[in-house]
Amino acid sequence: MSNSFGKLFRLTTFGESHGPAIGGIIDGCPAGITLDLKAIQKEMDRRKPGQSKIVTQRKEADEVSFYSGIFEGKTTGASIGFVIKNTDQKSKDYSHIAATFRPSHADFTYDQKYKGNRDYRGGGRTSARETANWVVAGAIAKQIIPHIKINAYTSSVGNIHVEESYKSLNLNSIETNIVRCPDSSKAEEMIEYISKIKKEGDTVGGTITCVIQNVPTGLGEPIFNKLHAALGQAMLTINAVKGFEYGSGFQGASSKGSQHNDLFNTDGSTKTNQSGGIQGGISNGMDIYFKVAFKPVATIIQKQITIDKDGNEVEMMGKGRHDPCVVPRAIPIVEAMAAMVLTDFIMLDKARQF
Amino acid sequence: MSNSFGKLFRLTTFGESHGPAIGGIIDGCPAGITLDLKAIQKEMDRRKPGQSKIVTQRKEADEVSFYSGIFEGKTTGASIGFVIKNTDQKSKDYSHIAATFRPSHADFTYDQKYKGNRDYRGGGRTSARETANWVVAGAIAKQIIPHIKINAYTSSVGNIHVEESYKSLNLNSIETNIVRCPDSSKAEEMIEYISKIKKEGDTVGGTITCVIQNVPTGLGEPIFNKLHAALGQAMLTINAVKGFEYGSGFQGASSKGSQHNDLFNTDGSTKTNQSGGIQGGISNGMDIYFKVAFKPVATIIQKQITIDKDGNEVEMMGKGRHDPCVVPRAIPIVEAMAAMVLTDFIMLDKARQF
Amino acid sequence: MSNSFGKLFRLTTFGESHGPAIGGIIDGCPAGITLDLKAIQKEMDRRKPGQSKIVTQRKEADEVSFYSGIFEGKTTGASIGFVIKNTDQKSKDYSHIAATFRPSHADFTYDQKYKGNRDYRGGGRTSARETANWVVAGAIAKQIIPHIKINAYTSSVGNIHVEESYKSLNLNSIETNIVRCPDSSKAEEMIEYISKIKKEGDTVGGTITCVIQNVPTGLGEPIFNKLHAALGQAMLTINAVKGFEYGSGFQGASSKGSQHNDLFNTDGSTKTNQSGGIQGGISNGMDIYFKVAFKPVATIIQKQITIDKDGNEVEMMGKGRHDPCVVPRAIPIVEAMAAMVLTDFIMLDKARQF
Amino acid sequence: MSNSFGKLFRLTTFGESHGPAIGGIIDGCPAGITLDLKAIQKEMDRRKPGQSKIVTQRKEADEVSFYSGIFEGKTTGASIGFVIKNTDQKSKDYSHIAATFRPSHADFTYDQKYKGNRDYRGGGRTSARETANWVVAGAIAKQIIPHIKINAYTSSVGNIHVEESYKSLNLNSIETNIVRCPDSSKAEEMIEYISKIKKEGDTVGGTITCVIQNVPTGLGEPIFNKLHAALGQAMLTINAVKGFEYGSGFQGASSKGSQHNDLFNTDGSTKTNQSGGIQGGISNGMDIYFKVAFKPVATIIQKQITIDKDGNEVEMMGKGRHDPCVVPRAIPIVEAMAAMVLTDFIMLDKARQF
Repeated sequence: MSNSFGKLFRLTTFGESHGPAIGGIIDGCPAGITLDLKAIQKEMDRRKPGQSKIVTQRKEADEVSFYSGIFEGKTTGASIGFVIKNTDQKSKDYSHIAATFRPSHADFTYDQKYKGNRDYRGGGRTSARETANWVVAGAIAKQIIPHIKINAYTSSVGNIHVEESYKSLNLNSIETNIVRCPDSSKAEEMIEYISKIKKEGDTVGGTITCVIQNVPTGLGEPIFNKLHAALGQAMLTINAVKGFEYGSGFQGASSKGSQHNDLFNTDGSTKTNQSGGIQGGISNGMDIYFKVAFKPVATIIQKQITIDKDGNEVEMMGKGRHDPCVVPRAIPIVEAMAAMVLTDFIMLDKARQF
Repeated sequence: MSNSFGKLFRLTTFGESHGPAIGGIIDGCPAGITLDLKAIQKEMDRRKPGQSKIVTQRKEADEVSFYSGIFEGKTTGASIGFVIKNTDQKSKDYSHIAATFRPSHADFTYDQKYKGNRDYRGGGRTSARETANWVVAGAIAKQIIPHIKINAYTSSVGNIHVEESYKSLNLNSIETNIVRCPDSSKAEEMIEYISKIKKEGDTVGGTITCVIQNVPTGLGEPIFNKLHAALGQAMLTINAVKGFEYGSGFQGASSKGSQHNDLFNTDGSTKTNQSGGIQGGISNGMDIYFKVAFKPVATIIQKQITIDKDGNEVEMMGKGRHDPCVVPRAIPIVEAMAAMVLTDFIMLDKARQF
Repeated sequence: MSNSFGKLFRLTTFGESHGPAIGGIIDGCPAGITLDLKAIQKEMDRRKPGQSKIVTQRKEADEVSFYSGIFEGKTTGASIGFVIKNTDQKSKDYSHIAATFRPSHADFTYDQKYKGNRDYRGGGRTSARETANWVVAGAIAKQIIPHIKINAYTSSVGNIHVEESYKSLNLNSIETNIVRCPDSSKAEEMIEYISKIKKEGDTVGGTITCVIQNVPTGLGEPIFNKLHAALGQAMLTINAVKGFEYGSGFQGASSKGSQHNDLFNTDGSTKTNQSGGIQGGISNGMDIYFKVAFKPVATIIQKQITIDKDGNEVEMMGKGRHDPCVVPRAIPIVEAMAAMVLTDFIMLDKARQF
Repeated sequence: MSNSFGKLFRLTTFGESHGPAIGGIIDGCPAGITLDLKAIQKEMDRRKPGQSKIVTQRKEADEVSFYSGIFEGKTTGASIGFVIKNTDQKSKDYSHIAATFRPSHADFTYDQKYKGNRDYRGGGRTSARETANWVVAGAIAKQIIPHIKINAYTSSVGNIHVEESYKSLNLNSIETNIVRCPDSSKAEEMIEYISKIKKEGDTVGGTITCVIQNVPTGLGEPIFNKLHAALGQAMLTINAVKGFEYGSGFQGASSKGSQHNDLFNTDGSTKTNQSGGIQGGISNGMDIYFKVAFKPVATIIQKQITIDKDGNEVEMMGKGRHDPCVVPRAIPIVEAMAAMVLTDFIMLDKARQF
């Protein structure tokens, strides 16, 4: 149950970072969708390690092999099985990690939960490599609902924040820089800062803002499957995420109702959009937007004192090739999760149309 | 599907604010739990309207009738059906609301989703009255896992914030004031402010912090059912919630890894707890804590211009008896949702013990 | 999870035979369905005890109170809560049953599963009274898919079998006799036989055949949610059911392929229908038909030696007012379960239409 | 949803008979199970084509590659991904089948459901090759619950029936003949008959009886997840299955209660076992046994008139290498499905133990 995501459009995954492969099965994909496989690979490349100087320099081809569910270029409605080979697992000795719990990783908790049974190499199942599977499914979801536009971008790195609303930004410019920030001057600052952090062997957190446009009204299932709750759950699923807010978010918590209410235009749209496109858990046709907080990557290239399985203190130091900041590579992941959620809700909504 | 919450410990609900009753069915409750019905009613009373001068003055007895699943004072393992009568639905004329969409309510979105079929009286299914059902189930959940301590409190109202960490506060003092804030001097400020806002016919938002203690290690199901993602989803389900963060939260997004990592003590506990008791989606035995943002109530006692079904502008003004701030009454709801989540995860964890 | 039925059109139930009430919640009902409440009650009356001389003489009004989800005569898309009061629980002393396990009932297994916690009065949660809840939901399902015709009838009682295929029978005549058999001469035999069995204080089993007509092609979800597997699961859920077969069924197991294959007409219909309207788990547009086997009711008005909780032998004898044969009253239950399954699959099918 | 099986122990699958591979993901497998990979392969070999003269002569290695979830020989609790390469897809021209609907296959229904999008080569997703995936998961399930003994055997082929109860048979002798029938004289008859049928280019149906021993009391979840209903659903999921009965089954439908009731021994066991080890949907500790009916394989090596997509009559004739009778190879499939069901229910039961 815990390795599946979605209700009707449903992704189930497997894979450890240092096993032979990762992969997944997409269940519920409608039949007759002409798949653009290059567009899928393009999304993979946006997530891929080694894509720029501010991300991990690991090399993974991240090529997807589809094994089923697609015939003569179209989906058949059968489950889509896919596999992504792991090509960069160095045959080095991981035994020193086997018994050591890295601070703020999931080593300790997995060890506790699974009673010592875990693939400790490179994080195993907890590795963010898993998110490559999500990007595959998200890229397919995007092709099922091509009319809906999903754009995520870096809205902060450390204390460098994009101040403007997404409305003032050119969302088409997100991919024009390696930090994926549509505010080009902030982008430069961020890149410089991440480069500096990297040199220090440190890491830094950041936030991603996601904007979803052209959403029809009526998506979202009350009571316990509200659209924003599903989006929140999806985002909190991403490795390193610590918070989620939509519309006015935490800011809204200090407002007064007389300021916060979104008054209507006569066409049913609203003059403001504090609601973030969702009211009572259901889309109102306005832009959906939300922000996601990512903590700094736990692996730092600095000495830390930690413990081993027997409770002995040991000194450890992360080895190279880790992301100094996950945010640039997390952009396509945020979009993928959002695309899956939207596709699922559109299917749920269709089911009720009599 | 959308009216059920939880996987193994599962609540399904029904009811509109102005129908004859609301209620629910709890499925999956273990057999042999001796239920303290007074403790359940006590939780209901914490949520009840009319309990203090800073909440809505509506009157609801909020008495729960259990119809099944309990025999000779103990749960039998059969589903627990319960009903809460609606006693305060005034037989007033709601026809003026029938055709009007209140700003920042769910009137418009329900109308769109259900093609004009909705019980518009008092919010119908969208009314926060529904949360009374959750408190029933949460109160039972608390009795299933009595060793786990769940305490929520008001951490801000408008711009009045409790500055201290929960660790410096006496969580046993939460119920000593009507705003449910363990910082007594902030509590006074908040009460005064809410009273003022109420007089203005306005409303204000706030935040709730929830602390969960004595959680065993190993709760949480990777990959897609992480403990914090489930808590986030649960909290975002509560009416008026706009954001969720756990541990270091949004603050963590501006930190560096060298500052943010939680170093271990030799017993497996950590020196700091930026992780908020959860690493890789699994509890690590430290306190779980998170914060939830509530927007101001949309119903204000001030004139607003809005639209009707036909797109005509109409002037409307909320009528009395609404909460100026939902936060004090939302405390038991936050706890109830958390209790259900924890119970569910404990059951999931038990299922894997071979 | 175990008290819910269906995926998108979903019924969740509660209630013991001797508690204050039974009831349920229907989740996923589409909005805008005009409900004929009399038609619902009519289905209830078909299942009701005391309706004829060959069924139990208990008296239950079996009146349904709807608490939510219906507004101005139409479904709103919100969950439909309903309650059926128990009016015939005599305040007699059940303590002698408390410690005794009736043969071929679920007393022993519930006691084992729930460690002695069970409402033993009148069967408690195991009572077939629960099926009244199903008939409510099934009656609503029938109104969602009015174009699909579902007719069940008694095809055998003991060794009295209707020999003809359903095609030679007038399905409109099912309700013209109290045993609900469209073969009027067999019906007389059956009634006479049940009356005789009843006088002997004994019970007898039987079979029900169900025919579903006007089913569109394409319903059914491969691989693990085949239409016939879902129907089978639904039927095996009904109290006292021991077997299920569809189309050629067990008879088909002794056939040769050259005889058994259904050859096509040029319009896609088939010349024969050994497939029972389902091929590869998906409806082919032909009539769906299946047969369900019911064992004899375990409660007999004859002395039996059984055991108590402590393993002592005790003599017991069932008391009056039990059904000598469940089949006549099970007809509407079979139809209700089938109607829910079909509605669910139609909704699942709609979800995939892009 | 439709490509997943089970609730807590959950298999999700993909794959077409003529794609590059089939495979699956097992979610919910407990951690720390030492897997005997040879035992898994042995189950695969029991299902494999080409294993004897009375089954299809296709050749498939049916070797399983595990990609995740197993580390140093033990399960880790992470999802287990596996792949089985398709090695026998001949590169022949399938275009003639593309437009033709084979009688009593799922060609027509898939075409209708998926609007012409389907992999028609060799049956595609509808091929029984899929069941190889189930055998993998079932073989793992068997290792999770080694104390429970699951034995299926051929109880009839055409009109040749094993007359004796399973109690009189030596279940250890099932694998001593190629038809997997523990009655050696009937086995010979069956083998001879299948050989004859094969020569005629025809096929024949049969039945399988499955016996599950050493089941603890208390497995099964009322109301809508009864143990026998789940077993029935599982069996009806297997290709070609037309019926399911447990315990007294259809025979029980003609009995009287006074004959049919299972009287208790003082230790809680029963003197007879018409109940088939399940009462009220819950195991009572006696042997569980059930019978499954398989229709004859639809592909026959005889000329048949059928239709193409445009409704034209066309003559077709199956090509070699099909099973004359599926029953011998379906034995391990029945056992695999039963093993998965039992494992799932044991996990569900554990979840409720407080």
